[in-house]
Amino acid sequence: MEHSNYITSANDKPLFTPGPLTTSRTVKQAMLRDLGSRDVAFVNLVKDVRQRVLAICGVAAPDYECVIIQGSGTFSVEAVISSAVPAAGKLLAISNGAYGQRIIQIAKVHKIDATPLVYPEDGKPTAADVEAALLQDAALTHVALVHSETTTGMINPIDEIGAVVKRHKRRLIVDAMSSLGGMPIDPEKTGIDFLVSSANKCIEGVPGFGLIIASRAALMECDQRARSLSLDVFGQWKALEANGQFRFTPPTHALLAFHQALDELAAEGGVIARAQRYAKNYQTLVSGMRTLGFKEYLQPQDQGHIIVSFKFPEHPRFEFEDFYSRLSEKGFVIYPGKVSNADCFRIGCIGRLFPADFTALLSAIREAKIEMGFEL
Amino acid sequence: MEHSNYITSANDKPLFTPGPLTTSRTVKQAMLRDLGSRDVAFVNLVKDVRQRVLAICGVAAPDYECVIIQGSGTFSVEAVISSAVPAAGKLLAISNGAYGQRIIQIAKVHKIDATPLVYPEDGKPTAADVEAALLQDAALTHVALVHSETTTGMINPIDEIGAVVKRHKRRLIVDAMSSLGGMPIDPEKTGIDFLVSSANKCIEGVPGFGLIIASRAALMECDQRARSLSLDVFGQWKALEANGQFRFTPPTHALLAFHQALDELAAEGGVIARAQRYAKNYQTLVSGMRTLGFKEYLQPQDQGHIIVSFKFPEHPRFEFEDFYSRLSEKGFVIYPGKVSNADCFRIGCIGRLFPADFTALLSAIREAKIEMGFEL
Repeated sequence: MEHSNYITSANDKPLFTPGPLTTSRTVKQAMLRDLGSRDVAFVNLVKDVRQRVLAICGVAAPDYECVIIQGSGTFSVEAVISSAVPAAGKLLAISNGAYGQRIIQIAKVHKIDATPLVYPEDGKPTAADVEAALLQDAALTHVALVHSETTTGMINPIDEIGAVVKRHKRRLIVDAMSSLGGMPIDPEKTGIDFLVSSANKCIEGVPGFGLIIASRAALMECDQRARSLSLDVFGQWKALEANGQFRFTPPTHALLAFHQALDELAAEGGVIARAQRYAKNYQTLVSGMRTLGFKEYLQPQDQGHIIVSFKFPEHPRFEFEDFYSRLSEKGFVIYPGKVSNADCFRIGCIGRLFPADFTALLSAIREAKIEMGFEL
Repeated sequence: MEHSNYITSANDKPLFTPGPLTTSRTVKQAMLRDLGSRDVAFVNLVKDVRQRVLAICGVAAPDYECVIIQGSGTFSVEAVISSAVPAAGKLLAISNGAYGQRIIQIAKVHKIDATPLVYPEDGKPTAADVEAALLQDAALTHVALVHSETTTGMINPIDEIGAVVKRHKRRLIVDAMSSLGGMPIDPEKTGIDFLVSSANKCIEGVPGFGLIIASRAALMECDQRARSLSLDVFGQWKALEANGQFRFTPPTHALLAFHQALDELAAEGGVIARAQRYAKNYQTLVSGMRTLGFKEYLQPQDQGHIIVSFKFPEHPRFEFEDFYSRLSEKGFVIYPGKVSNADCFRIGCIGRLFPADFTALLSAIREAKIEMGFEL
């Protein structure tokens, strides 16, 4: 592994992944600094980031609070589940994919009483099912689900489910990891108490921390509830409020990049404009892939514009590792599948990518098809 | 907060802190890339990093394993404590500062049975005390302590304590957050089962993850012991071993920076050469500060070359916030104190800093003294 590989490579392959994804050059250049984590310059930057994340969702302190947790997005999901559900509480954990399953797994590790409401990966949770579950079990205190299930690309109906959860006065936790910034989300209207996302998804920052948008009332309940020191959402918030500093070392460079990413999201025209770009990416991708004979795993009406699962072609000459390597050699990084009951690969539509990038990817896929000799 | 501030500022103030610290320009430039976290280029980089971290300590797989955990160093300390001590286990938690106290706090949050062995912040743990504690309580299974206690700058006697722990067949956990890379540490000779450190300390990377060096035998015991999903040391290792990939999104850019930092540590001549540079920084700092009339909190024989706590001068015109701001305006970032029973500030000797940087800092401190009018 040559030293020079890591400092001179100017043009990385575009990443057609759900993140870490392709970021702008300027987002990365924002990391060419060293800020003291307890110095006023960094404290002000964090304050600004927290306010602007709330503004993306059209909310503001003190009704809502933004808490940043170091680590991957899963660290923040675990922080919320294990900080919000009390010892005597019970979680209705909705799942139609690997990220829903992860919520169930988190509850299990923490010995949190949980009722799984599990759908097939191509099935969509319904508000009626959630309502039936809540009516059946008065012990349920919290409901958790994924918004954009990255396993398949499905968008779950958070508005309908949110209305039911609100009516039955339970707390709602939404894992919006791969959707925040790339789709409009209104926690107030939807009745989301804890919205979780990540720096390196649709806001187009680099990985290093997760974002939690919490209603103040729900956040206040978390005092003393946490089952971990590092993943204590209330403790983290309290420290950030006290002096603007993190309890434990923050990823200063990732936060510098994220601040720049927020500038660039605003410059693009905000979430609506970014969602339009991603939707164009998605349309370019799907229409091109259909022309090439590929089939999506989901029905179009269930599918979001964040990421698409394509079924492995039923052709003896198709072999995913070979397909992946050929595309990588041509300069395009796609993503393995995660659907459990079907062989799929995935192509992400998010990050600093434009329809022209998808046209180029489609050309490479066409070439790989010819080279590998599978006609569809 | 101007957009341009975050991309054009070429010269940040040197950070005389225990980290995040001043890193080289080339370490930061290594982050000007976007790698796919499941792509072979990144998988190979992670493999190389894990091997080289072990090599820093003179150990190698399969006798020792390197596990990387996302988040700050505390996340990794919590991961080790909560993954290693079994439900029926008991921890002897040695403390002579805030980071020792944090270990006690982690045990408490996880309801791990723990006996604190607490010393004053200027007191040094002894092997005799540890032996007495182990002889007195056969239930103790693990012993944990901090190597370089960043609260004061004290270096705790891990070799002597390690020998006792080994003789009594307990597991030893060492928080070497601020020492790994800046002081020679030999986990095999010392008998350390879990050594914990961080990317953004003496290896001079950027913050984003912690490092765990575990003896394989101790690591194997952690299967199914974890009390958290994200902070499961065994689970993280198993996934890294299976396909070289992280279970959950890694901080790809911080890992690129760290790989470069490892190159630069080797280029400097390894840990011995780096320790010599830090020792020169320390000597320059302390002799200059003494000349200026400042007094260290610790006795010199207890003090390491990582960070120094200085007592607030007993002069009515000394006010720390004013002192800090004046130094910051002159271009130098120092660090607040953390000693609980004495008013102190701290100056770190680590990071991409050289004796000339300390000479410059000393000039600024001399100026600040004159401006503030406190003669010592």
